[in-house]
Amino acid sequence: MKIGIVGAGAWGTACALAALRGGNDVTMWARNPILAKEISEKHENTQYMAGLKLDPVPEMTSNLSDLAKMSALLMVTPAQALRQNLKDLKPYIAPETPLILCSKGIETGTGMLLSEVVEDVLPTQKIGILSGPSFAKETIQNRPTAVTLAMENKKDGLLMMKTLGSAYFRPYLCTDIIGAQIGGAVKNVMAIACGIAHGRALGENARAALITRGLAEITRLGIAMGGKLQTLMGLSGLGDLALTCNSLESRNMSFGYKLGKGQTVKEILSQRKAVTEGFYTTTAVLSRAKSLGVDMPICRVVDQILNENYDIDEAMENLLNRPFSLE
Amino acid sequence: MKIGIVGAGAWGTACALAALRGGNDVTMWARNPILAKEISEKHENTQYMAGLKLDPVPEMTSNLSDLAKMSALLMVTPAQALRQNLKDLKPYIAPETPLILCSKGIETGTGMLLSEVVEDVLPTQKIGILSGPSFAKETIQNRPTAVTLAMENKKDGLLMMKTLGSAYFRPYLCTDIIGAQIGGAVKNVMAIACGIAHGRALGENARAALITRGLAEITRLGIAMGGKLQTLMGLSGLGDLALTCNSLESRNMSFGYKLGKGQTVKEILSQRKAVTEGFYTTTAVLSRAKSLGVDMPICRVVDQILNENYDIDEAMENLLNRPFSLE
Repeated sequence: MKIGIVGAGAWGTACALAALRGGNDVTMWARNPILAKEISEKHENTQYMAGLKLDPVPEMTSNLSDLAKMSALLMVTPAQALRQNLKDLKPYIAPETPLILCSKGIETGTGMLLSEVVEDVLPTQKIGILSGPSFAKETIQNRPTAVTLAMENKKDGLLMMKTLGSAYFRPYLCTDIIGAQIGGAVKNVMAIACGIAHGRALGENARAALITRGLAEITRLGIAMGGKLQTLMGLSGLGDLALTCNSLESRNMSFGYKLGKGQTVKEILSQRKAVTEGFYTTTAVLSRAKSLGVDMPICRVVDQILNENYDIDEAMENLLNRPFSLE
Repeated sequence: MKIGIVGAGAWGTACALAALRGGNDVTMWARNPILAKEISEKHENTQYMAGLKLDPVPEMTSNLSDLAKMSALLMVTPAQALRQNLKDLKPYIAPETPLILCSKGIETGTGMLLSEVVEDVLPTQKIGILSGPSFAKETIQNRPTAVTLAMENKKDGLLMMKTLGSAYFRPYLCTDIIGAQIGGAVKNVMAIACGIAHGRALGENARAALITRGLAEITRLGIAMGGKLQTLMGLSGLGDLALTCNSLESRNMSFGYKLGKGQTVKEILSQRKAVTEGFYTTTAVLSRAKSLGVDMPICRVVDQILNENYDIDEAMENLLNRPFSLE
């Protein structure tokens, strides 16, 4: 198949290589023509994945019109840019072209899941969700990666699973496109919490408790939004949470870690090229949870620390020393 | 309350300190009188937790008869020693004294959960399960630790929760004593699998997939044995799994890691003082799963590697590259 990749960040590059290894023709769009040219010539994404040889390497473009003839598009731009990207793409995509959403997050302001943003801008488009525990670097290196692929229509899903899958990139299929987005959006907030705990040297026991409670929060929210428990306990939920909360390679975890070590939000964000989704997602997650009557104490504490200037030690203490209760 | 701790290993010592911080009189029994004396005099468990000052420090004994007047006993000897310990204790405990099982594992040979071993030897005893993500060292250091405490009778459970809990040691109560044991017993097998993957440098994505699939296996087995999903998703299930599979401080994970690096089972075990529960548990878990008709592919692969001389790379490849399927 002809696969278009919209976005040439770290994960976009990884998706491009996965699609190439699945035996497809792959064209990756980079907003920046210099980056597009560089990837083509140097077989390296110097901006987002420097030092890693890309093998194989996709066709590169910086013209959205080059994506017009694709059989499917993988959307891998930052969550907050999706709406504008879709508007820009609109003239070039047929209504039957599936859009596979590979970014994670919730649109701030509207609180929408990314599938809801697509439904808003391109209401007739087929939607897929690709999400799971996947550091881009490892996928690029062709190390084993298993992800959830969700499409409402099972037949579409099966086709896409076979298209994108290869020996070491394993999509597992489900039809729960709502559930498959919750983990990816909310785990970044949990990763910030775990990073803060780590920065404050609270220990591994505390972190494991946060992960457990974190999945409980994710599950409560996901089910209230119409997702399924099984999806939330799967690769896109628990899997992604376990990965993100256990490695300082995760941007959100390292963001929390630096906060825990005493840096300010402003300082940390000013040092970064790549987007720290969790920072933007926290408030959106909380307001969505509130409207559904779902309690999310860890998200609330992260929001208090990020946006309300709460003292970190006091906030974490409140979280970890809640009254004795039933599990 | 007067609390007796049976076993003076790393976790026994941690339980003793937690009980002391809960405001109780605590007596810890060590089989070895030299160790008992040493802990009393040096305020340090030189054998199992060298270099860590114990503050506070429990009363020490090596006579089981000193445990006769306790209001509750915490059982913290290795799983495979429990049956003999219970027989030895029998003359000294009243039938109403609760036994809180703090060790993790399954009895080899019988395939029994530890609560089932108690029912076998001391059928009238009240049973509690204390289990969750808890490195002994951190609990001794009074860093935040949250665990599941399961007792069938809620009133008994509430009393024990208040007795053992303190500011940084937080037991969460449930009544599911079966479910609360499954995670602790099986996670050691999963940790060996994750250790092997880590030793083979398969990457973080693969490890997160193993953790996710691992919880699915634990959950299938737990529910077939009569446990509850909520317990398995809680601190004693997911929490303990997440902790154990993400740190080389875990004995089982480091055991797998060394296997992955090419050492043999025999070499690794001969270098160790402390028990590697997972090594003994794997076969017992599998035979129990088989009798219940539960599929546990990760456990099976670990068993093949440990006990059937399977090639590690081939076995892991079979596990990670299973056919495309539904999640």
